[in-house]
Amino acid sequence: VSPAFSEKLGAAIDRSDSLLCVGLDPDPGRLPAGVDVTSFCRGIMEATHDLVCCFKPNIAFFEALGREGMTVLHEVLAAVPADVPVILDAKRGDIGHTAEAYARVIFEDFGADATTINAYGGHDSVEPFLRYSDRGVFVWCRSSNPGAVDFQDLIVLHEARSMPFWQALAIEARQWNINHNIGLVIGATFPAELAEARAIAGTMPILAPGVGAQAADIDAAVRAGIDANGRGLIVNASRQVLYASAGPDYAEAARTAALALRDAINSQRWLAEDTREA
Amino acid sequence: VSPAFSEKLGAAIDRSDSLLCVGLDPDPGRLPAGVDVTSFCRGIMEATHDLVCCFKPNIAFFEALGREGMTVLHEVLAAVPADVPVILDAKRGDIGHTAEAYARVIFEDFGADATTINAYGGHDSVEPFLRYSDRGVFVWCRSSNPGAVDFQDLIVLHEARSMPFWQALAIEARQWNINHNIGLVIGATFPAELAEARAIAGTMPILAPGVGAQAADIDAAVRAGIDANGRGLIVNASRQVLYASAGPDYAEAARTAALALRDAINSQRWLAEDTREA
Repeated sequence: VSPAFSEKLGAAIDRSDSLLCVGLDPDPGRLPAGVDVTSFCRGIMEATHDLVCCFKPNIAFFEALGREGMTVLHEVLAAVPADVPVILDAKRGDIGHTAEAYARVIFEDFGADATTINAYGGHDSVEPFLRYSDRGVFVWCRSSNPGAVDFQDLIVLHEARSMPFWQALAIEARQWNINHNIGLVIGATFPAELAEARAIAGTMPILAPGVGAQAADIDAAVRAGIDANGRGLIVNASRQVLYASAGPDYAEAARTAALALRDAINSQRWLAEDTREA
Repeated sequence: VSPAFSEKLGAAIDRSDSLLCVGLDPDPGRLPAGVDVTSFCRGIMEATHDLVCCFKPNIAFFEALGREGMTVLHEVLAAVPADVPVILDAKRGDIGHTAEAYARVIFEDFGADATTINAYGGHDSVEPFLRYSDRGVFVWCRSSNPGAVDFQDLIVLHEARSMPFWQALAIEARQWNINHNIGLVIGATFPAELAEARAIAGTMPILAPGVGAQAADIDAAVRAGIDANGRGLIVNASRQVLYASAGPDYAEAARTAALALRDAINSQRWLAEDTREA
């Protein structure tokens, strides 16, 4: 029996001393000459697996490879070290038999430890994912793009209180968390939202994509997003690591970038720990 | 140059005298003995293509076929008659490069005439789809499942008015419709919501899934959902047509079911026309 996602993630955080997740968004137009997608992803993972708490392949980039894309994704997943959990980023969301099919594909066919979902269809649309109680289900709450304000920030009336829509989503997700397998996706570019999300989430994990090249962004995101134990935050970086070099040294450059990110994240974790102990 | 989706849809409605869409949700466990998925979908399409205004393959059911699923989907799409538009039901939604990849896969690799999307990421997450101005983009607004109320019906403040969230989504979608290629997805099981959606949508097309076996459901949905010209509504039926018979006569049974649905829809269109003229 494989461990539940939360245990596997916790063990990976301890082993790597890292909250960094490397996102696998392979873009054939940006790969080093003569390196195919599978080899590229393998090279990135070999170079960084001891520095990360998980890998996050983005299924859109594999679908974009055409008819072989799902075979390539299977090859990449087979190359993930057994002790590193995989979040398959797919943001699926639909109702009834369709939701069941999506959950089965992601958790059974691809064997992902966790996935991202879109909860717009409400509880029964999410339940087919949640019933895989040993897998993680990250609900897409607040994104890091300009249009995030269009709907996610609309003020709603939820249980007689007014709040941004995404907070109502986070509160519902927390209430649905009877299997202790739900997390939230909150863009790292908005530290204020990340802090509010943490207040709602308690110790639920938060996946924070969108970390930019500036250390300042990381600092604010980590301070806002970690839980009371200095954990519970998964900081995703994709292109910054994958394309650190466009040459044959891409794997070495990816390791250097991942190491710098891990350490930048940890310096904030330690500062927060000092503050808690003081 | 192929016609824009709206023209292709309009021509198909005229030719078939039908607002019926047959949804292709192939479930290997329900196929007649000895019939594979590609043959089954071909059989359904051959038996019903003159009775429908479009076909709607649901990508989840093809993903669920495993590594060959996308090849099967390509085979099925290749068998769609040239004059019947295809709505590829995928409800994709994400930001940035990911949204661009999803749009490219659906409109270029699969060549779909239209798709369904999830607009939770806001305008810039939808724009990669909208810029394919000759393709249709149906924004998932109000679903037909019990959990639809969880988020879609939350009361929001939008442009200083309070309304259910899904109506704010519909109003935004209408404002984004500069390429005249946006439609809405509104579950057919809630005629009151369908009527409110029509009031917002004007002549934007509405895709209405969830029609049940009862003619009463269809009657109410059609009356509520058609536009001022007795058009603009796409009534989807999937299992009711696909699995009308589990035997070797499945195609014939599908035709009988589709014919009954088309005529039930049309009787309401004619009643509405009489009312307008009276």
